[in-house]
Amino acid sequence: MKNMEIVSVDLNERSYPIHIGAGTLAGLGERLRELRSSPRVALVTNPVVAEHYREGLVRSLRGAGFEPAVIEVPAGEEHKNLAWLTFLYDRFIDARLDRQSTVIALGGGVIGDLAGFAAATFLRGVPFVQVPTTLLAQVDSSVGGKTAINHPAGKNLIGAFYQPLLVWVDVQTLRSLPRRELTAGVAEVIKYGVILSVDLFDLLERRLESVIALDDELLIKVVRLCCTLKAMVVGADERDTDYRSILNFGHTVGHAIEMLTDYRQFLHGEAVAIGMVCAARLSQTRGHCRPEVVQRITQLIRRAGLPVSVPQDLTEKQLTLAIETDKKASRGKIKFVCIEDIGRTCFDHLTAEEISHRLRH
Amino acid sequence: MKNMEIVSVDLNERSYPIHIGAGTLAGLGERLRELRSSPRVALVTNPVVAEHYREGLVRSLRGAGFEPAVIEVPAGEEHKNLAWLTFLYDRFIDARLDRQSTVIALGGGVIGDLAGFAAATFLRGVPFVQVPTTLLAQVDSSVGGKTAINHPAGKNLIGAFYQPLLVWVDVQTLRSLPRRELTAGVAEVIKYGVILSVDLFDLLERRLESVIALDDELLIKVVRLCCTLKAMVVGADERDTDYRSILNFGHTVGHAIEMLTDYRQFLHGEAVAIGMVCAARLSQTRGHCRPEVVQRITQLIRRAGLPVSVPQDLTEKQLTLAIETDKKASRGKIKFVCIEDIGRTCFDHLTAEEISHRLRH
Repeated sequence: MKNMEIVSVDLNERSYPIHIGAGTLAGLGERLRELRSSPRVALVTNPVVAEHYREGLVRSLRGAGFEPAVIEVPAGEEHKNLAWLTFLYDRFIDARLDRQSTVIALGGGVIGDLAGFAAATFLRGVPFVQVPTTLLAQVDSSVGGKTAINHPAGKNLIGAFYQPLLVWVDVQTLRSLPRRELTAGVAEVIKYGVILSVDLFDLLERRLESVIALDDELLIKVVRLCCTLKAMVVGADERDTDYRSILNFGHTVGHAIEMLTDYRQFLHGEAVAIGMVCAARLSQTRGHCRPEVVQRITQLIRRAGLPVSVPQDLTEKQLTLAIETDKKASRGKIKFVCIEDIGRTCFDHLTAEEISHRLRH
Repeated sequence: MKNMEIVSVDLNERSYPIHIGAGTLAGLGERLRELRSSPRVALVTNPVVAEHYREGLVRSLRGAGFEPAVIEVPAGEEHKNLAWLTFLYDRFIDARLDRQSTVIALGGGVIGDLAGFAAATFLRGVPFVQVPTTLLAQVDSSVGGKTAINHPAGKNLIGAFYQPLLVWVDVQTLRSLPRRELTAGVAEVIKYGVILSVDLFDLLERRLESVIALDDELLIKVVRLCCTLKAMVVGADERDTDYRSILNFGHTVGHAIEMLTDYRQFLHGEAVAIGMVCAARLSQTRGHCRPEVVQRITQLIRRAGLPVSVPQDLTEKQLTLAIETDKKASRGKIKFVCIEDIGRTCFDHLTAEEISHRLRH
């Protein structure tokens, strides 16, 4: 197959490959046949993604001898819940999936999380394949094995660590992605450069506009780099206990902003973009990095068309409370991810108050 | 602690100990403290079990510095479902459990399966401790990491493999178990002897009445032997793919009988008792074992007060259909667990028709 790169995520007996290519969607059926999945498979997607890729993927699966049951869940985070999980279980039973039946998630993070959790728990776990169609899902949620649904009391409160059989990235699926969602995904790409790789950061500084213009070769390279970096971190710390928390760079403040704006004003990546600028500034004022580093980061984020400042109407007090709630750290200090330089992080222990105070001063 | 035996279940990084003792329930709090569980813990049980052991266990937990939230689910298999799972999630949130909070399942298989699955999926997995209070749960469901809930379409269709932090068996909790449930548990004990250990089988032949009379020392020995045997099998095949299926001895016919009598006429162990006698006879007619072996098995099962024959009103055709449905094997052959001798199994490949035909001839 043309232009196919493979990143291997090594997690002991649960290792799996990420295939990254351009125009490769139609090859998935053949690959699945090689893996001896049983004939009945479920393809979980949403109507927006289905419009573009359902037909092609179903043809590929049928051509390889599969009988795909297509299951559509409405688009949007608000459907990542117990009711739609139950809906998936019922459809899996209707489709008579067996223990060797593969569940394929075609879509972004919501579909991946929901279908992944359903696959993790149906018949105590059936094979799971991710076909991420957003940049965020391609670089982020397809590595690490986190699956989950939301609970009225909070996001991702119910879930499982469950590794896919494989991840199949076709960067051409990004062509149907709304520009704003693409840009939000770029925020996470920048994050990988900032925390882990000066090479990736340099590449983005040189060619950011080509990434956003969806240059196939460049996208393959960027997705491969991000997946390799995340796989490295996750491989070192599969159960999300310690080292892995460097991936939360920009997320402490990002989450607080998302919460305070009811998840409506900003996409996740946009809130993280603001959070990264804040974390970079905080790193400087705490003496961890030079001002030039903050400048480079802020500039790149701004060039991507992403927001860089906390909305004026959010008060310091609101931010403190939101950070405390998110981190369940009312008494204690938060392990805050700071940077020392592009590609190098350190931890600083701060209270929510100290963090939000510095956002406003 | 007096009279405490420990069986180690070795599953790579997820190994855990089974503590088996008599009168040891009050020691759990102390043990949990040594394991550094966070102060908030959930104790999931049912009102029948709670009546006997809730107070003592709560005292033990409080004494060790824990704040246990006691959560009661009505007794009975019909509550092992999505609605009660959701109920547990809600209570966990009310109790403000965190990622280091332990969920303790105090009860039989239903409580263990339900609370275990909730623990496996809350915050993507929190520590889980089993305190089995039925003989069946002590020798069987506490080893192997199977957790699950039922779906209207079938039993245990939704679940996860999730290993507990530890299992805490106090054989004196069997004193409050109804005699019929105790006897049903003995069926599974006999099974371990039949398929894996002539020593255990001999011991039961010598001292079955003392087991049923709840001799502490003997029970500790029997539970330890069964857990060791199951741990050995499960350790060799954690994901329930092949070798582990010898544990299904007696279960093909047992399940069919349970289904055909709507899970009302027989307890699981009783149906398995009948299934074991059938499987033994079938092993003989297929030339795998001598008639004396069948006789010894049948005699021991009968001595325990367990049923040994398929109800007369079930037709051959009904049995065939039930076996096919259970094994999803309408076209294919079933890998049927036969015996060659006490303690030695082999597989035979038979259609559902061949199995049920021999039950009636």
